Amino acid sequence: SEVKKIAVIAGDGIGPEVVGEALKVLKKTEELFGYQFETEHGLFGGIAIDEKGTPLPQETLDLCKGADAVLLGAVGGPKWDNNSKELRPETGLLGIRKALGLFSNIRPATVFDCLKEASTLKPEVLEGTDLIVVRELTGGIYFGEKFRREGAFGEEAVDTCVYNVQEIERIVRQAFDIAMTRGKRLASVDKANVLETSRLWREVVNRIAPEYPEVELEHVLVDNCAMQLLRRPSSFDVIVTENMFGDILSDEAAMLTGSIGMLSSASLGEGSFGLYEPVHGSAPDIAGQGISNPIATILSVALMFRLTFGYHEAAAAIEAAVKEVLDAGHRTGDIAVDKSTAIGTTEMGDLIVAAL
Amino acid sequence: SEVKKIAVIAGDGIGPEVVGEALKVLKKTEELFGYQFETEHGLFGGIAIDEKGTPLPQETLDLCKGADAVLLGAVGGPKWDNNSKELRPETGLLGIRKALGLFSNIRPATVFDCLKEASTLKPEVLEGTDLIVVRELTGGIYFGEKFRREGAFGEEAVDTCVYNVQEIERIVRQAFDIAMTRGKRLASVDKANVLETSRLWREVVNRIAPEYPEVELEHVLVDNCAMQLLRRPSSFDVIVTENMFGDILSDEAAMLTGSIGMLSSASLGEGSFGLYEPVHGSAPDIAGQGISNPIATILSVALMFRLTFGYHEAAAAIEAAVKEVLDAGHRTGDIAVDKSTAIGTTEMGDLIVAAL
Ligand SMILES: CC(C)[C@H](C(=O)O)[C@@H](O)C(=O)O
Ligand SMILES: CC(C)[C@H](C(=O)O)[C@@H](O)C(=O)O
Repeated sequence: SEVKKIAVIAGDGIGPEVVGEALKVLKKTEELFGYQFETEHGLFGGIAIDEKGTPLPQETLDLCKGADAVLLGAVGGPKWDNNSKELRPETGLLGIRKALGLFSNIRPATVFDCLKEASTLKPEVLEGTDLIVVRELTGGIYFGEKFRREGAFGEEAVDTCVYNVQEIERIVRQAFDIAMTRGKRLASVDKANVLETSRLWREVVNRIAPEYPEVELEHVLVDNCAMQLLRRPSSFDVIVTENMFGDILSDEAAMLTGSIGMLSSASLGEGSFGLYEPVHGSAPDIAGQGISNPIATILSVALMFRLTFGYHEAAAAIEAAVKEVLDAGHRTGDIAVDKSTAIGTTEMGDLIVAAL
Repeated sequence: SEVKKIAVIAGDGIGPEVVGEALKVLKKTEELFGYQFETEHGLFGGIAIDEKGTPLPQETLDLCKGADAVLLGAVGGPKWDNNSKELRPETGLLGIRKALGLFSNIRPATVFDCLKEASTLKPEVLEGTDLIVVRELTGGIYFGEKFRREGAFGEEAVDTCVYNVQEIERIVRQAFDIAMTRGKRLASVDKANVLETSRLWREVVNRIAPEYPEVELEHVLVDNCAMQLLRRPSSFDVIVTENMFGDILSDEAAMLTGSIGMLSSASLGEGSFGLYEPVHGSAPDIAGQGISNPIATILSVALMFRLTFGYHEAAAAIEAAVKEVLDAGHRTGDIAVDKSTAIGTTEMGDLIVAAL
C-alpha cells in the first residue's frame, strides 16, 4: 500500500517514552497489515524552547504540513511555566492548531470496564457512558484580540471572543456527521442566555439541524451541562461546543470516566489530515522512570488509523490488543490497584505488540 | 431591635411557594429573638414581563435599593425562553446584579449527611466536602460589549471579556477574608495560559496574597479545576474565580454534593447589603403542586442573617431546625428515597417552624 508520512512529535516529560511504545505498535502493523509508514521526528514544546528558542520551530511546522498525520506525545512542564508568553509550550500548542487549521478537537470519553472502579462516580451512574466531545479549536476567546489598557479604574485586561458563521457551521456539521455514525444524539452546548457568540452558535445549529432529521438535538446551557455530565453521563452521545467551554467540559467528561490515562484525542482540519495525542499531560514528576502508561498514545494510533487513514481493521486490532492485555490483568502504576504488581512502560508496550 | 427591611421577590415557577415557607420562618424568628422585619414584595422576572412589560421594573429596583436585604425565589420558565433579549427573565437577573452592585456570588457546596446517597459520587470521595465558590458577578464576558458585525467570512458575533484591577482586587480580598474564617485555603481559578484577563487576575491575586500569610494559596487552571472538583472535592476550601468560570464551576460543585435542592447562595456588594436565593431554579414542571422543597430558600434566610444582619444565633437555630427535621426522616419528593412518604412544601415549612 501507499506510504503514509507521520510526523512524530515526542515533546516533553513522559512524551518520548509513551510515543516510543506507540511507534512499536505502528511498526508491528506494517508487518501484519502490509502498511508502509515513514516517520520523522520534530522538536516541539519545552524541548524546542530549549534547543531552538521557540516552542514551534518552522521546520517542525513544515514537517507537519508535509505529513499525512501527526503523532504528538505531550508538552510542557514547570521548567517553562514562568517563561514569557512567546516562550511557553502552550503557545506552541495554540500555534500549531492555528497553523495546521485544526478546527476540531475530538475527545472520546469512554469507560474501560476494568477501570470503572477508578472513577469517583458510582459504577451504576457511569454504566453505559460512551460520549464524544467535539470542541471547536481555532476560534473563540482563545484566538480573539487580547490586550491591556488603562481604563477609568486603572489597568484593565481584555479578551475578545469572536465566532463567524462559517467557523460554527463546519464544526457543527462535523458533530452531526459523527452523531450519525453513533447514537444519533447531539447536545449543543452554549450560553445563549448571556453571550452573543452563543446566540449565533445556536442559530447556526438550528439552521443545520433539518439536514440531519435522524439526529435528536438538544441545546444545553454550559452551566447545566457541567451538572448533567455528573448526573446522567450515559445519556450523552455527542456534545459539540465552542473552544473555551469545550476545554472545560472535555476535561470534566474525561475525569468522570476514571480512565484519563487511557484516553486519546484527535484534532482535525479539512480533509483527512489530523493530529493525534493522548489526553493526559507530560507528567514531569514521573518522566524518565519508565513507569508511565503508554496506552492512551497507542490508542491515539488506532484513532489515527480510523480517522485519517481509514485503516479500520488495524484500528480494531490495536484496540482489541489493548483490551486483551488489560483483561489479562496487566497494569502500569497509574491504573494498578496493587502498585507492587505494576509493570513498566516498555513492558506494557511489548505486551500490546505481542497481543497484536 | 432595629427594623430590618427585606425586599421579597418571589418570582416565577416554584418561587412563590418556597418563599412563602421562608417567610414563615422569618416571622417565627421575630417571635423567638425579638427581631423586627418589614417585608415588601416586588415583581421580577417572568411575572414582571407579563404584568409590567419588563423583567426588572423600576419600582422593584427602588424597593431593593431601599431595603437592607433581598430574598429572591427563582425566575424564568419556558414561557419566556423565546422572547427577545430585553424581555427575558435572565436579563432582569443580570440587570439587578449590576444595578445593585452585587459583585460577589457566594455559593456554598455542602454535603448534607442524609443526602450523601443522592450524589452520583462515591460517598468516600465526597466525605468531608465543604467548599465555597466565590464568583465574580458583575464583570467579565457577561457584561462586556457584545455585538454582531459583517466579517470577511460572513456574519460574526463578538463578546468582550474585560476585567480591571479594582474589580479583581475586591473579589479576591473578599475570598481571602472568607478563607480566613474557614479552612484558610484558597484556590484561585483562571486560564492564565491563554487569557489576558486571567493573567491580570493571577497578578492581582499574587500581589494580594502576602496580606494573608496564613492562607495557603493555589492557582488552578479552569479545565484542571473541573477535573479536581471530581477527583478530590474535599480538598477544596474556598475557590475564587471570574464570572463565566464561576457560573460553570459553582454548578458543577453544587451538583456533586447531591444536595442541589438544599443549597442557598448570597450575592453581595460593598457593605452589608445582599441578595439571597436558593441555587435551584424555578422548576416550572412542578410549580403550583405544593411539592417543591423550601429548604434551600429557608437556608437562604439563615445566610442572610449571618452575612447581612449578623444574627448568628438565629442563623444557627434555623440550620439546626432544618437538620432536626431531616434527621427525623421528613423529606419532600425531590430528596425522598421512598416517594410515597414524601411530604409537601407547606408541611416541610411548618415542621421547620415547629422545630425552631
Ligand atoms: C495547554 C492549553 C493551552 C490547552 C487548551 O486550553 O486548549 C489544553 O488545556 C488542552 O485542552 O489542550
Ligand atoms: C440565568 C443566568 C443568566 C445565570 C448566570 O449565568 O449567571 C444563572 O446561570 C446563574 O448562575 O445565576
